[in-house]
Amino acid sequence: MNPSSRLGFEVLTADLGTAARRGRLLTRRGEVETPVFMPVGTAGTVKGILPWMLRDTGARIILGNTYHLYLRPGLEVVEKLGGLHRMMAWDGPILTDSGGYQVFSQAGLRKIAENGVRFRSHIDGSQHELTPEKAIAIQETLGSDIMMVLDECPPAGADPRYVAASVERTTRWAERCLAARTSSAALFGILQGGTVPELRAAHAEVLTRMSFDGFAIGGLSVGEGAEEMVAITRLSAALLPPDRPRYLMGVGRPSDILQAVACGVDMFDCVLPTRGGRMGTLFTSRGELIIKHARYRLDERPPDSGCPCPVCARFSRAYLRHLFLAGEMLGAVLNTLHNLCFFGRLMEEIRASIPAGTFPSLLEERLPLLDRRVPGGE
Amino acid sequence: MNPSSRLGFEVLTADLGTAARRGRLLTRRGEVETPVFMPVGTAGTVKGILPWMLRDTGARIILGNTYHLYLRPGLEVVEKLGGLHRMMAWDGPILTDSGGYQVFSQAGLRKIAENGVRFRSHIDGSQHELTPEKAIAIQETLGSDIMMVLDECPPAGADPRYVAASVERTTRWAERCLAARTSSAALFGILQGGTVPELRAAHAEVLTRMSFDGFAIGGLSVGEGAEEMVAITRLSAALLPPDRPRYLMGVGRPSDILQAVACGVDMFDCVLPTRGGRMGTLFTSRGELIIKHARYRLDERPPDSGCPCPVCARFSRAYLRHLFLAGEMLGAVLNTLHNLCFFGRLMEEIRASIPAGTFPSLLEERLPLLDRRVPGGE
Repeated sequence: MNPSSRLGFEVLTADLGTAARRGRLLTRRGEVETPVFMPVGTAGTVKGILPWMLRDTGARIILGNTYHLYLRPGLEVVEKLGGLHRMMAWDGPILTDSGGYQVFSQAGLRKIAENGVRFRSHIDGSQHELTPEKAIAIQETLGSDIMMVLDECPPAGADPRYVAASVERTTRWAERCLAARTSSAALFGILQGGTVPELRAAHAEVLTRMSFDGFAIGGLSVGEGAEEMVAITRLSAALLPPDRPRYLMGVGRPSDILQAVACGVDMFDCVLPTRGGRMGTLFTSRGELIIKHARYRLDERPPDSGCPCPVCARFSRAYLRHLFLAGEMLGAVLNTLHNLCFFGRLMEEIRASIPAGTFPSLLEERLPLLDRRVPGGE
Repeated sequence: MNPSSRLGFEVLTADLGTAARRGRLLTRRGEVETPVFMPVGTAGTVKGILPWMLRDTGARIILGNTYHLYLRPGLEVVEKLGGLHRMMAWDGPILTDSGGYQVFSQAGLRKIAENGVRFRSHIDGSQHELTPEKAIAIQETLGSDIMMVLDECPPAGADPRYVAASVERTTRWAERCLAARTSSAALFGILQGGTVPELRAAHAEVLTRMSFDGFAIGGLSVGEGAEEMVAITRLSAALLPPDRPRYLMGVGRPSDILQAVACGVDMFDCVLPTRGGRMGTLFTSRGELIIKHARYRLDERPPDSGCPCPVCARFSRAYLRHLFLAGEMLGAVLNTLHNLCFFGRLMEEIRASIPAGTFPSLLEERLPLLDRRVPGGE
């Protein structure tokens, strides 16, 4: 890692058949092999998972949510406890979002202006303002290793004129975020532009001239269809510099991840493995398994035969179904643990396949099996 | 272990100053050092705890609830999954209750008769009958290593004439349970008699003539005061044969356990460490710590300084408070883990103190510190 750089990134192998690449992030808290999936640790915890078990699921970097942590427990607490890493006992790298996405999706009464966005807390209705400078200051206080700029993420189907104006403001905010940084944390710009190719291209043009350590593709997985998401991801990734990591925010399903890797994306985060675990959805090599289904009542098989995770090694579908129906916490914990292992292993397979030249065939084999319900009898 | 016996028990050392004893249970699934605390695994899970972490909390034997498991997931499921041990991936010994206590405390519309007790499920209102024979058959199907007889447990303050009649029925049920056993599982009789010394003595007289592998003291921790509980425990333990294990059902707080050990009790179970963990109560060497309290908002200290558990080694009171207030599952998991370790370690200290001759001083030192709230500043 270049000592003047806040984040190193090496492309180790590029796939010949697709835009996929096998790389390595060099963060100030250790190396991360890419393509990588980052479990979401919203409020200072990857929900239900003991932090010392996270590495065993394959996780090497996790995500923290600025909006949630800022509101609860609040910066005074995080600072007193020595920062987010020490507070939650995770010593690997942490990427934080800017808080913007949650302000737009969860907070009440938000009001956007040139300076920033005013909003009410979804917890207690208290009023707050998030500006580009404040988004950086909060992330630096949390101790983030990879920070994100404050951006606006318009909903799918927003008026293209609104999206164009929003992109311009996001650019100005990105400049202010870069100027506001005072730490050795890395900072990523976020490419917006909705589903309008011209806006994506124009935004990439100005954004990539700024000295960001990496670039995120934002504004996707917000309600557009899967095909459009892949198309915009492909187009966006190609607009970003090949020597910087590319991060597709909030994506996604295993099938989305495989396709986005083929577009040249290096980093992913999504609540699906954790939220899905709590809701009783298990991700498997044969598709999504809805554990409450009556067909699993007496099913002695593990969720995913051949899966080496500690859940599949010990427990049956019937037991996990029982825990889920009885509302037992352990059900959510075990489902989440399996899901994180599944995502971790999928990324491992992707990483192994690129230098082996087998990524295109992995894509072809796995894709039709992932994005479906597990059929009866399997 | 005598091969003709279903359960071995050795008293290794008897304390000179109290009736405490250091012993060893020899179950068909391994040895258990006594005095022992058994975490409660109500519905096939010690709530929130990964079963492969249970041993590290000090647990060597756990409890399963016949009533809950019979209703959900039901015997067909447990049997299909190879019994309770295999279903929940716990290969140590399991003690099961008879289901009677929950029928009397949780089920709806119960109706007691000589043959058994009819009740409605608290889950779906379905009608069931629990007889002594059925209680044994269910426990054998679960694969219990130590079964309990079906008994009636009258509430504190019940009319002594009712208690007397109930004790007689419990005796007849105990005989039927013994006759119904078809397996190599151990079976404990349960001493009843409420808070009436004469009834306790009379019941012990007939019960101890039957060939039980051990004896439980029932009917306590049901609303009587702490002093009365200790008095009846002392009296009851002295009525039971010294060469068989004594189990005080449903007890209790750390201070209760210490005092009951001094009465000669060998085995305990209680939901306090698990339920307390979910409710935000942490058991510590300085008393009970209510984690939501505002005084812990910025408290960097572990819950119990000097506690070697994985929670105290990593996390602050302020972080655990945050998790609790945010409703994060991990809060309940970590609190429970700490509590189980605390109970496990307390039992370890008790076991070490008896051969060392220091149990009376341990009792004297610890008792005033356990049964209180942690004072401010500690």
